[in-house]
Amino acid sequence: MDKYVIGVDFGSDSVRALVINALTGEELASAVAYYKRWMEGKYCDPTKNQFRQHPLDYIEGLTECITEALGQLSPEIAEHVVGIGIDTTGSTPCAIDKNGQPLALSPEFAENPNAMFVLWKDHTAVKEAAEINEQAWHHSEIDYTKYVGGIYSSEWFWAKILHVLREDSQVREAAYSWVEHCDWIPALLAGVNSADAIKRSRCAAGHKAMWHAEWDGLPSEEFLKAVDPLLQGYSKMYQDTYPSNEIAGTLCQEWADKLGLKAGIPIAVGAFDAHMGAVGGGVTAKTLVKIMGTSTCDIMVAPYEVMQDKLVAGICGQVDGSVIPGMIGLEAGQSAFGDVFAWFRQVLSWPLDDLVEKGELSKGVRDQVFDSMLGNLTEAAAKIPVEETGLVALDWLNGRRTPDADQTLKGAVLGLTLGSSAPKIFRALVEATAFGSKAVVDRFRDEGVEIEQVIALGGIPKKNPFVMQVTANVFNMPIKVVDSEQACALGAGIFAAVVAGVYLDVNAAQKVMSSKYARTYYPEADQVQKYLAVYDKYLSIGKLLEDSLRAL
Amino acid sequence: MDKYVIGVDFGSDSVRALVINALTGEELASAVAYYKRWMEGKYCDPTKNQFRQHPLDYIEGLTECITEALGQLSPEIAEHVVGIGIDTTGSTPCAIDKNGQPLALSPEFAENPNAMFVLWKDHTAVKEAAEINEQAWHHSEIDYTKYVGGIYSSEWFWAKILHVLREDSQVREAAYSWVEHCDWIPALLAGVNSADAIKRSRCAAGHKAMWHAEWDGLPSEEFLKAVDPLLQGYSKMYQDTYPSNEIAGTLCQEWADKLGLKAGIPIAVGAFDAHMGAVGGGVTAKTLVKIMGTSTCDIMVAPYEVMQDKLVAGICGQVDGSVIPGMIGLEAGQSAFGDVFAWFRQVLSWPLDDLVEKGELSKGVRDQVFDSMLGNLTEAAAKIPVEETGLVALDWLNGRRTPDADQTLKGAVLGLTLGSSAPKIFRALVEATAFGSKAVVDRFRDEGVEIEQVIALGGIPKKNPFVMQVTANVFNMPIKVVDSEQACALGAGIFAAVVAGVYLDVNAAQKVMSSKYARTYYPEADQVQKYLAVYDKYLSIGKLLEDSLRAL
Repeated sequence: MDKYVIGVDFGSDSVRALVINALTGEELASAVAYYKRWMEGKYCDPTKNQFRQHPLDYIEGLTECITEALGQLSPEIAEHVVGIGIDTTGSTPCAIDKNGQPLALSPEFAENPNAMFVLWKDHTAVKEAAEINEQAWHHSEIDYTKYVGGIYSSEWFWAKILHVLREDSQVREAAYSWVEHCDWIPALLAGVNSADAIKRSRCAAGHKAMWHAEWDGLPSEEFLKAVDPLLQGYSKMYQDTYPSNEIAGTLCQEWADKLGLKAGIPIAVGAFDAHMGAVGGGVTAKTLVKIMGTSTCDIMVAPYEVMQDKLVAGICGQVDGSVIPGMIGLEAGQSAFGDVFAWFRQVLSWPLDDLVEKGELSKGVRDQVFDSMLGNLTEAAAKIPVEETGLVALDWLNGRRTPDADQTLKGAVLGLTLGSSAPKIFRALVEATAFGSKAVVDRFRDEGVEIEQVIALGGIPKKNPFVMQVTANVFNMPIKVVDSEQACALGAGIFAAVVAGVYLDVNAAQKVMSSKYARTYYPEADQVQKYLAVYDKYLSIGKLLEDSLRAL
Repeated sequence: MDKYVIGVDFGSDSVRALVINALTGEELASAVAYYKRWMEGKYCDPTKNQFRQHPLDYIEGLTECITEALGQLSPEIAEHVVGIGIDTTGSTPCAIDKNGQPLALSPEFAENPNAMFVLWKDHTAVKEAAEINEQAWHHSEIDYTKYVGGIYSSEWFWAKILHVLREDSQVREAAYSWVEHCDWIPALLAGVNSADAIKRSRCAAGHKAMWHAEWDGLPSEEFLKAVDPLLQGYSKMYQDTYPSNEIAGTLCQEWADKLGLKAGIPIAVGAFDAHMGAVGGGVTAKTLVKIMGTSTCDIMVAPYEVMQDKLVAGICGQVDGSVIPGMIGLEAGQSAFGDVFAWFRQVLSWPLDDLVEKGELSKGVRDQVFDSMLGNLTEAAAKIPVEETGLVALDWLNGRRTPDADQTLKGAVLGLTLGSSAPKIFRALVEATAFGSKAVVDRFRDEGVEIEQVIALGGIPKKNPFVMQVTANVFNMPIKVVDSEQACALGAGIFAAVVAGVYLDVNAAQKVMSSKYARTYYPEADQVQKYLAVYDKYLSIGKLLEDSLRAL
């Protein structure tokens, strides 16, 4: 009998549905739906780094992409869909009422950004994060940050909640609880109508909410109250959390009708996109999965025995079952990767933009130059020998996520001469992002986590061979590039297959369903040696400059 | 009776003649002649930083520009020309034969770059400069570098001579002596036909050849031989040197006929362009004259009593009479100023150049963008408040001339974020060049040389008000912009008037003939305060990074 699953991947701008043959891993159809209100710029204020998303964007997008993907296939397939898996960005929390409904879905809060999902990249809670760290480091018996890398971030759950509670007394009074985006979508599909009945994602809770078995749940009431009395009562928001091989609920009749699926099929507990992407990309022990796009997310899994009594400092967390049940999931990443290249393109296109604005150049010529620029820069940079740029760059243009989170750090280009051309600078920037990646690898190794190979997925690996080859040389490790364009949705589909009982566990499902690899980049011995010397300079100059860059 | 003088200014690419009414300072006519062989790129190899100029370029250019300038005026004026003054770039030495003739003027050496003038910016002698420093600092009783700022440069006389002697045995054997460009032109016009009869410029000898009264001339035979036995005999190349209020010789019949002037009129001893430019710009005690172009040359004069037993460390030299006779002339400067802005324009125009090369963009559009770019960048940068760039740049893209010469230093831009736009970076570069200027001012002051005001001349001051205002704010001093477009030639004309006896001394001549000022930039109090903070960062980051930048 045929068995199909649907993996749904909520990204920053859009949501994708992927229909997969659960018995073969074959990707049959996919569709993408953009968030309408978001694309209009609603509820956001980039000058204040405020990024909010309306729950209706998610509801409408979810319906649209699933029905569109299924619409590409014969109607029998929908009848044989046996499970659904969901991943989302995160930490992306939202206030909910007693019925588990996001506040913005009630007319009273329909236009209030504080009643909506606070997107991962919203940076309005910098102050709150600092206060949480201060409390955890200096005034608490337990350092609740110890399993999230030792530093709590403004991008995370509690900081965002506290910020909204302080900002908005109406939301504060109406909020019964808070959910992550990846908690809410499965509950929505399952028709859960009580906040307390929502099954919480282990991945989100462990990496972003300081949930841990050691203290039997969320941080203590005492701790949260000491951060701010507004957090009173929130330590009991939930106690249990679940990895994604567990069922969050079964598809309710209303949504089954809406999507043209059978009611009652299981929905896996949600998790974050990078974590499920790692599963789709074939993560195993001793393998680093890099999701490489505007920024990177670096995911690993390690057996319990490797991680026993071990705290990896300066990463984004270590959580039992956040990636693969029965293993510790480790998360790290770089705050900017592709964004660094995009920034340089933006700088180089200034003279064109300026002329277009002044009506002296056609937008057509401008767009032609802009579209071809990264390709042309790459081509020119690839021709320059490693040692010839004479430049070292620091890649912290958007701060540093790992190792040792510090969003106040900044980037730099050093060694400039009158002969430093645009391609030389671009090459130095590519090298810097690869060095930033290597610093993450080194941190894992220094803390005793072995890494033997790298698997890459996301926007960059299939698009830019030069960047990948430089990274392989800097790593001195092979990098396998995931073939699937939808590795995150594929990972969600793998969990769907597990909760549907098609496979006994995630490992078994991965063996059949994980993506194949498009190609492998092998390190080139002579280049490896040369990069070692430049990497040393990157590290020593970075260390030397940290304080100065913070102060700029 | 009317009295006119001619000032001749040999620059890097061309020579200018300026005809001046010596009684009023009025500039009557000027003409420029480009060096023909040089403009064709002959005898140079930019990849090796080899820049040589053929003496015929100077001879032909000199004739052309003087006759053309005189041709613009009524014939009577030529009859009343009473003196000629000459300035040139430097250190720009050349090997001469016993008759005082540059070797390249004999058929045997006509095409040999080693038999030509080694232009100031030729950097082929880096190794030789290091050897001279080593000898002077560690193996010599007298540190012969002490009056040239403590560090001998690869751009200077002895390093260049030694490099050619090592490179070229034919030139080595044929060379009887060596002259600076500013020594040779007056001798040429005077028909001097013996190397030993050439009057040597105090300015060139003191600033570049380690000539000093303390050791009664050039460095000792023992010292030069210890640097390299090839320098044997050269300590006696000359002993006396002359400031430019002395007569180098009188115009010989041959050149009088060629130029349409009267034979027998006096020719002033030559000097360097910046030093004579300072005189043309009205240099006096407590005034820093900045010649601001691709690089800067910073000139001061100080009374003997101020400089008694004082060595200003880390500048390009302190020489009795090198600017104004009877005062100590002080020289400093920045290796790149306008060149820093030109570099950034070059980087920003890469996408255009690339497309032009690929035939996808018309050269016309490219040129349009290129020509307007610095103006547009300036306009946009001027709108950004000081504190908003968040950037600090180091201006050592061409090394650092002063304070503390170090050509191995390099530039940097620090504090980059994803919002660092081209105008913000440009603004940081402008600030960096101003900070580099301020570091020179501070060095003078730290060593007890007072500075109360600044006079600016050269390519930038009249062209870029934004750069000048930033510099005035960073200096917290008024900057007077010289009105004359030909301040160097005007300075040469002032010395011509002195040797012709029109004035008793340079001060008297300056009072009448020095340029007026086009405008004055006054510091803005609120900006001054803000720049103080950024300047501190520039200094501390620069200090922190020096070793790292050297190693890149």
